Amino acid sequence: MNRQSLIAQLAEAFCCLPGVGPKTAQRMVLYLLDRDREGGVHLANKLVEAMEKVRHCKRCRNLTESEICEICASTSRDPAQLCVVESPADVFAIEQTGHYRGHYFVTMGNLSPIDGIGPEDLGVDQLLARAGEDVGEVILALASTVEGEATTHFISEALKQKGIRVSRIAQGVPLGGELEYIDGGTLSHAFNGRREL
Amino acid sequence: MNRQSLIAQLAEAFCCLPGVGPKTAQRMVLYLLDRDREGGVHLANKLVEAMEKVRHCKRCRNLTESEICEICASTSRDPAQLCVVESPADVFAIEQTGHYRGHYFVTMGNLSPIDGIGPEDLGVDQLLARAGEDVGEVILALASTVEGEATTHFISEALKQKGIRVSRIAQGVPLGGELEYIDGGTLSHAFNGRREL
Repeated sequence: MNRQSLIAQLAEAFCCLPGVGPKTAQRMVLYLLDRDREGGVHLANKLVEAMEKVRHCKRCRNLTESEICEICASTSRDPAQLCVVESPADVFAIEQTGHYRGHYFVTMGNLSPIDGIGPEDLGVDQLLARAGEDVGEVILALASTVEGEATTHFISEALKQKGIRVSRIAQGVPLGGELEYIDGGTLSHAFNGRREL
Repeated sequence: MNRQSLIAQLAEAFCCLPGVGPKTAQRMVLYLLDRDREGGVHLANKLVEAMEKVRHCKRCRNLTESEICEICASTSRDPAQLCVVESPADVFAIEQTGHYRGHYFVTMGNLSPIDGIGPEDLGVDQLLARAGEDVGEVILALASTVEGEATTHFISEALKQKGIRVSRIAQGVPLGGELEYIDGGTLSHAFNGRREL
């Protein structure tokens, strides 16, 4: 006899998604019930399947439903380049540029002693082992945040100690960026990283 | 071996939700996989349950999982007032004010000859029968759009012919609205609907 129950329960379940509050959740529920019940069931099936089957690639720690992800398994990619990123979303973003054709290693986070996240959580040992195999250059593409900087520093030191070539993606003004609107830190980096023409 | 498949499929399934495009969908998928797999499975279960069990109340056509919805079944509400609204979301909105204690009738849309939506789709016959039972006043609270106005007109004529009292919620300036920013149509309505103090 609880009228709201199922609808309210579903709306509450939707709230677990990022960026979805009670109002948006209600709109989603009513939309699905009203116009797209098949879509709702399809979404449910895919959710169950993905939550169950998707795991981390044994080589690069990216998300995949196989033992080894498609990029690691690909023979057409350059095994001499290894790009270190923070999350699977970063892999997607880089893949969309179509520019990079090497392999990846996903740390799934940054060093953060305050949250108890140490090198072992980022798989640094695994990265060092992997880089020691046949990689010519490790390209660090972690975030330019305090944690990202610390992680970049830590990983680059560890790699250098093993004699592996390390680089880092350029920091500077973004394309289409007006100088006057760019923050001082970015501008300083852009000056320090200037290249002769 | 198709790395993207499951993740991409799930992201595509999320795109059936209103306001969710490919980027948001990807963010949702990665968030769930990374941080809240239980939430994802819970969402899937609730989705299946709701898509299967939620239907329309036999009395008021609102969404419910029972034969008769909670509002219609409630004995504490005033059966003399019947509020006609367009969608279940409108019922939620009115219920949240806590002001109205009568019953509802949900048309699930407005008259729209161009889309082939006629009076029978809105359950006008059902509404007339219901209003003839024991309702003292029918309050029309449909949208102030062209279709809403047409529907309001059609329903009010049909009810008046049966000698049932019909009213319509007031149209005027919203609370906190600065006069200079309010459109001419609303202002005209506000003048026409002025009340002596």
